[in-house]
Amino acid sequence: MKIALIGAGRIGQVHAQAIASHPEASLAAITDYHASAAEALATQYGSQALSAEAIFADDTIDAVLIASSTPTHADYLEQAARAGKAILCEKPIALDLARTRDALQVLAAHPVTCALGFNRRHDPQFAALKQALVEGRIGDLETLTIISRDPTPPPAEYVGASGGLFRDMTIHDFDMARWLLDEPITHVQAAGSCLIDPAIGKAGDVDTAMVILTTASGRLCHIGNSRRACYGYDQRIEAFGSKGMLQAQNESETRLRFTGEPGQVEEKPKWFFLERYAEAYSREIGDFVEAWQAQRAPLAGASDGLEALRLAEAAERSLKEGRRISLDHIH
Amino acid sequence: MKIALIGAGRIGQVHAQAIASHPEASLAAITDYHASAAEALATQYGSQALSAEAIFADDTIDAVLIASSTPTHADYLEQAARAGKAILCEKPIALDLARTRDALQVLAAHPVTCALGFNRRHDPQFAALKQALVEGRIGDLETLTIISRDPTPPPAEYVGASGGLFRDMTIHDFDMARWLLDEPITHVQAAGSCLIDPAIGKAGDVDTAMVILTTASGRLCHIGNSRRACYGYDQRIEAFGSKGMLQAQNESETRLRFTGEPGQVEEKPKWFFLERYAEAYSREIGDFVEAWQAQRAPLAGASDGLEALRLAEAAERSLKEGRRISLDHIH
Amino acid sequence: MKIALIGAGRIGQVHAQAIASHPEASLAAITDYHASAAEALATQYGSQALSAEAIFADDTIDAVLIASSTPTHADYLEQAARAGKAILCEKPIALDLARTRDALQVLAAHPVTCALGFNRRHDPQFAALKQALVEGRIGDLETLTIISRDPTPPPAEYVGASGGLFRDMTIHDFDMARWLLDEPITHVQAAGSCLIDPAIGKAGDVDTAMVILTTASGRLCHIGNSRRACYGYDQRIEAFGSKGMLQAQNESETRLRFTGEPGQVEEKPKWFFLERYAEAYSREIGDFVEAWQAQRAPLAGASDGLEALRLAEAAERSLKEGRRISLDHIH
Amino acid sequence: MKIALIGAGRIGQVHAQAIASHPEASLAAITDYHASAAEALATQYGSQALSAEAIFADDTIDAVLIASSTPTHADYLEQAARAGKAILCEKPIALDLARTRDALQVLAAHPVTCALGFNRRHDPQFAALKQALVEGRIGDLETLTIISRDPTPPPAEYVGASGGLFRDMTIHDFDMARWLLDEPITHVQAAGSCLIDPAIGKAGDVDTAMVILTTASGRLCHIGNSRRACYGYDQRIEAFGSKGMLQAQNESETRLRFTGEPGQVEEKPKWFFLERYAEAYSREIGDFVEAWQAQRAPLAGASDGLEALRLAEAAERSLKEGRRISLDHIH
Repeated sequence: MKIALIGAGRIGQVHAQAIASHPEASLAAITDYHASAAEALATQYGSQALSAEAIFADDTIDAVLIASSTPTHADYLEQAARAGKAILCEKPIALDLARTRDALQVLAAHPVTCALGFNRRHDPQFAALKQALVEGRIGDLETLTIISRDPTPPPAEYVGASGGLFRDMTIHDFDMARWLLDEPITHVQAAGSCLIDPAIGKAGDVDTAMVILTTASGRLCHIGNSRRACYGYDQRIEAFGSKGMLQAQNESETRLRFTGEPGQVEEKPKWFFLERYAEAYSREIGDFVEAWQAQRAPLAGASDGLEALRLAEAAERSLKEGRRISLDHIH
Repeated sequence: MKIALIGAGRIGQVHAQAIASHPEASLAAITDYHASAAEALATQYGSQALSAEAIFADDTIDAVLIASSTPTHADYLEQAARAGKAILCEKPIALDLARTRDALQVLAAHPVTCALGFNRRHDPQFAALKQALVEGRIGDLETLTIISRDPTPPPAEYVGASGGLFRDMTIHDFDMARWLLDEPITHVQAAGSCLIDPAIGKAGDVDTAMVILTTASGRLCHIGNSRRACYGYDQRIEAFGSKGMLQAQNESETRLRFTGEPGQVEEKPKWFFLERYAEAYSREIGDFVEAWQAQRAPLAGASDGLEALRLAEAAERSLKEGRRISLDHIH
Repeated sequence: MKIALIGAGRIGQVHAQAIASHPEASLAAITDYHASAAEALATQYGSQALSAEAIFADDTIDAVLIASSTPTHADYLEQAARAGKAILCEKPIALDLARTRDALQVLAAHPVTCALGFNRRHDPQFAALKQALVEGRIGDLETLTIISRDPTPPPAEYVGASGGLFRDMTIHDFDMARWLLDEPITHVQAAGSCLIDPAIGKAGDVDTAMVILTTASGRLCHIGNSRRACYGYDQRIEAFGSKGMLQAQNESETRLRFTGEPGQVEEKPKWFFLERYAEAYSREIGDFVEAWQAQRAPLAGASDGLEALRLAEAAERSLKEGRRISLDHIH
Repeated sequence: MKIALIGAGRIGQVHAQAIASHPEASLAAITDYHASAAEALATQYGSQALSAEAIFADDTIDAVLIASSTPTHADYLEQAARAGKAILCEKPIALDLARTRDALQVLAAHPVTCALGFNRRHDPQFAALKQALVEGRIGDLETLTIISRDPTPPPAEYVGASGGLFRDMTIHDFDMARWLLDEPITHVQAAGSCLIDPAIGKAGDVDTAMVILTTASGRLCHIGNSRRACYGYDQRIEAFGSKGMLQAQNESETRLRFTGEPGQVEEKPKWFFLERYAEAYSREIGDFVEAWQAQRAPLAGASDGLEALRLAEAAERSLKEGRRISLDHIH
């Protein structure tokens, strides 16, 4: 599968590495707003720097991986669909529902394999948790508790352009919740505060938040977010059901334990998503290649992006209005 | 300190044992609605069975421990206050705010040492967590996550008389939240479902619930409840702050680990509150004796019961109305 | 059961507390080389200070608990046996085999309930491990690994009178090994060094040691000792068999976990035997009372003291001679 | 670095993968006793199948990785040294000391970069433990406890050709002990039994063993081996010192935890060395490439093989003779 990479920034580099390591994928071309970045990465992986136009026009290229800046995602996605190329698009497709829906319509008109970069579904531990749920290990799922904290807050200027905490950060947790709850989410309640960086508050956003989701059958889900966990990336999920509980725990570089003056000490969790989800990024490419080869749906698709965005929209409204928001009212 | 026990049921027996084991307390008398129960327990501990009237009239008795049925708490508490006896009253004082306020007024008019049976404040692990918060171990507290699940649901008939999940079960978590958050809680959001026993739903209650509390400074607290955790009593608290995280974990009988076919297996959590909080009940008596001797306030007092009940009331309203409830409106 | 305590020092005080807390035992009298110590303890527990002679002569006293200095154990034990009193004797009976054998002969001539203070057999976690072995949880036991480290080395002068590391400290591990291996130990190999305190080496002893025991059927047991574990009392046992492994782990005051700059930190192990084996001392009294009432053998008896001492003797010889020592040669 | 692989069996395939994944190494050629195996592997990795002669004669090949059957190691190693090629040789060089010394003499006469396949030194967790020792995290190292158990015993016929447990399996532990103890080992004591498969006993070997090593300064090291741990590959190291303890723990596929009827269950350890040391094999190639480029010694070299073999020889003698063996007598 010949994949062209759109965007040679930090996350683009992660994908370049994953593509290069996959036995059945190759990095056919790279483009970036900064041509020099594309060239540098192309040199590193023995690929070529091309313009986006040239990529879409090149019939030997099977797929594009869209890892450019968020505002460009939807346009590239539509161009790629029209060019008949398989797509792996970093989330989000867009920060608003209308633009996202438009892109989905183009995809409907030009059906191609289209995967969305909800990388956490590919994490081995979360995947094992999902598998255990499917196998009925805990009977009927009743509640889900998702803790998701970043190690450091982004600069306030980033926050302004990010669409806010729910669209930028919680969006991953909304997707995990949807994937694991496995039935329609009907209501959203949210609370949030600015406790870490006043500049985030001035930008109109929160840096600490809690959300409750309710599903059609009454399952409940808690999401707890913080923009700053001084000890690293805190990524845990607890699924509770009629026959037991499953807990995905934080991971650290090694399991070495020291016992001494301060107590019994194990390593801190891995620092951030590049470390924690390194394996997930690799598996994400694997799923994309397989889905394209087998003409099956990838593990996360474009409509998952839309649905997660609806939840973010509902959470934002709940935070503002102090009410439980029904998903029926989010279009 | 000569303590008379009112109520010789299950929890009364726990207290009898704790009193008998305390070097500076003695079990002066026992009364119960069922005289035979009082007599049996009196025999076991070398005490005497008396009527409640006789207890209140006996000047050699310093204190009463009220462990009778919930509807009798407030009356006994008022009688004890009027009789000038120190009081350790099982929670709740009453299931409604008005009756609770009346009792507090009587206490105000007849000031005696009055402790309320929020036993969890006396748990060594939770107490260590509180102490670490006070010492600033995690910097500024930002969020609290309380998981509190019972091993088995009560019979539906109990549920009807209990005041509902928030007043009966979450009340303990509300108290822990108040104690640990250490500032006024301003808003409550709640969600709930009946997923375990339809009879509970028919009785108008939920058996699975999630609550979000917000404090004056914006701290957030999640409480997750279930009436049935098949693996035992699930009692965990996670405090998250600017400099780290504290986690109180479940306890088991021993730390013996088996590794074999099923994996690496440690014991289940202790089954229920009698096992999990055995040490807490003992320390509760200790605190009561000390508070009385030193004429200081006990760790949990009558007003803590009122405040926890206000939170329960707010949660119930939020669940029904689908809104965030301000505590300003709960009188 | 009316028990007289011989010896009011540190360990005597632990036993006094355990006796006083037992519902069917009472502290009938206390004696000590220092009469004032006996009196102080008697006052604390509402008992009486008597001479040893008076105790042995008092027909209302059922039992003696010998917790005096080591050199006096055997004499007191013989006097008690001749007086027909049940005996709970702190280990060791004596530091040499001959004196121990003599005491056993007196016991054989005057059969009374006689328990030896191998307190660890009463530890709930080790008892659970033993129970799991008996139930076949790990199939056939093949190896045992015992880690046993004290928090701080004793003063060198103590070492001189203690009989050396193997007789003083490893003796507990030899007993655990015998109890858990559950078949005759046939050979002993030992190694040792003085790494912690040169004064211990000058006194002719080691402070760091490793021992291998081999049983009749070929089971192997490792014992690893140190006189100084800076993080507290390190008491772990690992039993390995054909169907799995059991691990008794260190215990700490609470399971509170802190995650922050240094990593994920749990509390240090409990500091020393008084903390770690508090529950074991209590259960030891319980077993003693029960054994006497039921006229059954206590969990650890006088012959267990002899056998553990033979292993210590063999280890000492192995260390000196650099050879594997057969127990056949230790009389 | 152009590397030719000698041996296309199971471990050869692991190395082929590691070489192919290394950015600065390439798999130049493959040879095997079974030509078809070499061809199949060459096809898989886009390499070529050559004879060993052709490999040694090819000046464009920089290095050979010897992963053929044990009896051929020494010959290939000598040929490679004479051909001036860098060498990464699977352990052991040979099963006897004389043949090993001969090979070392050839290496001395033809100095090339020569790494020995003690893969465990490259394990991230053990490497972190070593690093912590070097940094003085536990002060002075006093004792080492190595638990090393295979999941299943080899067929008895393999045992016969393997040189016995100490040369075949414990050899890795001897190397770890040497690396971590970081000073000369002076004495060896060993015990062993046949508890798992009587056929192993008939072949003259043991399947369960314990060893004590003593170093020049008196540090002690325990090695505990079993040929069968039903729960998987048990690979743990505990280093104990004056300022604390370091414990390298078993690793599992994920950290997912299930709590339910059987208790709190985490996954079994990884099954065997291919899973547990996958990362170590990859790092081993990295170290080899770096050592060759920088003309520095690799992390484990040929003399480490000789020294570990001397310890195996001493352990075997100790087991047979029932004596502590001085390394001075092992030539």
